[in-house]
Amino acid sequence: MATQGQVITCKAAVAYEPNKPLIIEDVQVAPPQAGEVRIKILFTALCHTDAYTWSGKDPEGLFPCILGHEAAGGSIEILLNAKDLFFVWSGNRVVESVGEGVTEVQPGDHVIPCYQAECRECKFCKSGKTNLCGKVRSATGVGVMMNDRKSRFSVNGKPIYHFMGTSTFSQYTVVHDVSVAKIDPKAPLEKVCLLGCGVPTGLGAVWNTAKVEPGSNVAIFGLGTVGLAVAEGAKTAGATRIIGIDIDSKKYETAKKFGVNEFVNPKDHQKPIQEVIVDLTDGGVDYSFECIGNVSVMRAALECCHKGWGTSVIVGVAASGQEISTRPFQLVTGRVWKGTAFGGFKSRTQVPWLVEKYMNKEIKVDEYITHSMTLGEINKAFDLLHEGTCLRCVLSTSD
Amino acid sequence: MATQGQVITCKAAVAYEPNKPLIIEDVQVAPPQAGEVRIKILFTALCHTDAYTWSGKDPEGLFPCILGHEAAGGSIEILLNAKDLFFVWSGNRVVESVGEGVTEVQPGDHVIPCYQAECRECKFCKSGKTNLCGKVRSATGVGVMMNDRKSRFSVNGKPIYHFMGTSTFSQYTVVHDVSVAKIDPKAPLEKVCLLGCGVPTGLGAVWNTAKVEPGSNVAIFGLGTVGLAVAEGAKTAGATRIIGIDIDSKKYETAKKFGVNEFVNPKDHQKPIQEVIVDLTDGGVDYSFECIGNVSVMRAALECCHKGWGTSVIVGVAASGQEISTRPFQLVTGRVWKGTAFGGFKSRTQVPWLVEKYMNKEIKVDEYITHSMTLGEINKAFDLLHEGTCLRCVLSTSD
Ligand SMILES: [Zn+2]
Ligand SMILES: [Zn+2]
Ligand SMILES: [Zn+2]
Ligand SMILES: [Zn+2]
Repeated sequence: MATQGQVITCKAAVAYEPNKPLIIEDVQVAPPQAGEVRIKILFTALCHTDAYTWSGKDPEGLFPCILGHEAAGGSIEILLNAKDLFFVWSGNRVVESVGEGVTEVQPGDHVIPCYQAECRECKFCKSGKTNLCGKVRSATGVGVMMNDRKSRFSVNGKPIYHFMGTSTFSQYTVVHDVSVAKIDPKAPLEKVCLLGCGVPTGLGAVWNTAKVEPGSNVAIFGLGTVGLAVAEGAKTAGATRIIGIDIDSKKYETAKKFGVNEFVNPKDHQKPIQEVIVDLTDGGVDYSFECIGNVSVMRAALECCHKGWGTSVIVGVAASGQEISTRPFQLVTGRVWKGTAFGGFKSRTQVPWLVEKYMNKEIKVDEYITHSMTLGEINKAFDLLHEGTCLRCVLSTSD
Repeated sequence: MATQGQVITCKAAVAYEPNKPLIIEDVQVAPPQAGEVRIKILFTALCHTDAYTWSGKDPEGLFPCILGHEAAGGSIEILLNAKDLFFVWSGNRVVESVGEGVTEVQPGDHVIPCYQAECRECKFCKSGKTNLCGKVRSATGVGVMMNDRKSRFSVNGKPIYHFMGTSTFSQYTVVHDVSVAKIDPKAPLEKVCLLGCGVPTGLGAVWNTAKVEPGSNVAIFGLGTVGLAVAEGAKTAGATRIIGIDIDSKKYETAKKFGVNEFVNPKDHQKPIQEVIVDLTDGGVDYSFECIGNVSVMRAALECCHKGWGTSVIVGVAASGQEISTRPFQLVTGRVWKGTAFGGFKSRTQVPWLVEKYMNKEIKVDEYITHSMTLGEINKAFDLLHEGTCLRCVLSTSD
């Protein structure tokens, strides 16, 4: 390929400062180094985590940066091959995993970049107990790549930080090979890009983290994309009562399509919402899911669980520094408090499986896409994200 | 039997007021009503929950009362039989469960009264998910018996409240039939009385609630009776590193006998104890247990768990009104926060099984008994409870 090993100049949305409009401009994207993949991003969706970091409320947010992490469906433009790497890096442990990566992903493959890596060789990946791979986190957490602890993005020589190891608000990005899921080339990228964050997070919270059984009662706090995916997950798991809770009653109509069959608006009640749900369910729900990121709601979600077995899963991301609390009696009497990240899915292994499920019409994806725009309209798209009528807005990166 | 159906006058330790010495005096113990069993208590141990309620810090504590709940090994003196009851209570639902009780427990049986009931027919018992039977809780929670919502204890006609549905600091007590575990008559009652609270709580926290696997790392906060039982449970479950944490370093010697093979005194460290444990274990422990009842320690116990899978179990009982807190990130990154009551054991079914395990020398009991006294020395025994050298003090109720 003509661009192989060369710097590519392309359009990206750069966040120079918190809370200032993103600027679409020419960025230089360096070629991938050992263990890295350069991806041509075709479609990227916006997620609340992008908005949170952009807002400046995330103390770990680094600027300037290129945001974006949700399932930018793309195709690989360049992956350094094992031969080159052995030459350069002979004896270096990094090489081995790149070699491995090469066998899995080739230039031209269709991929979904995954903010949650899966190396298959670290303590976490091998534990069989978690999807939280630790291999590249020390780099992705500070906006750089593992290999040289530097960014592959720059504007006129000035580095621009990576974000969540993905930085998908760009026509090209560079990610670690352990963060790339190879998917069925027949899958429509403008849809399956959603399988990079919100939808798997909700489905997996139910299937992997809570392990909801048939006949269960479920309460879902917050009916955005993640909450609706929880509803869909609960429905497919055989839950009978799926209670949606939101301060916007208009959301119930849409939520019904995803499996919600009862609705409670906390504003309609004097009592704390946990008491309302406990009364409604003869003692509480079997499973609850907090999909907002509000620590008070997290408490309510725990406390509306049934004594003896109710399990509450924190799915939403709270603002930095905030804490959850409850009386320990809530746990001593049998409630369980958990959380989930990317729904507990092993990204490289299971995102392709989710794509297959979508292709087989076993899970919804299209139904979450309420808006489509171009990368150039990204600031307008962010405004939309705060409106109740927007679930997912997918941006095309082509002009 | 001569006393059947009669009021029995016997010695009991009455708590008239919070924090005032218990008074040993003659109490009248009314005969059991439908669904009740009168038990002759032979041995009773003291537990911290007794001391907590006695202290007046428990807002639900009722005075005057007869405290005591730990495995007072006793023998049944009277159980109204089904025929009598059908006569008196024909058509009353309570009769059915008494009839059932009669088939299980007969006068003369050796029993352990259980503060955690097991009716086998309520929503909780049938769930297969919890040991928290709900059948008699509405009565035991307010110091009375279900049948007439009154106490069976009185002094000169003035009622004395029950405590935890057991009130074992008395030569005779009346409990609900669903709160009586029938045990092997060959078991030494002066030992197995301990199987009514602390020892099962610790063992069960490991076996039932945490489900510790072989090879696990375990941290135990607090090396009293419950903490030591956790250690023993962890050892039998195959845990490799069993780290005891206590502010009294002298406890390590004893703890070694129960399986603790590493010791940390938080006072020896500048850093928060959770960081000390995380450093010591390359990222945190697989399982932690809080056996003190201190909400700050509960937080530390959660936060010293390994990212991705570490599970923390709250075993200690915190003072009323206190709350636990942490950053939700702790849960979102895979830690699980649980609690346990009576170690998750189904009391009527599993206390006899624990007695068998003791008889087969598969679990320790004798080793927890550091002191033996008589009921008349109970105030001295309570003083001992606050000393580090005392694990369990067993009181004989005979003069
Ligand atoms: Zn996201
Ligand atoms: Zn890994
Ligand atoms: Zn106790
Ligand atoms: Zn029950």
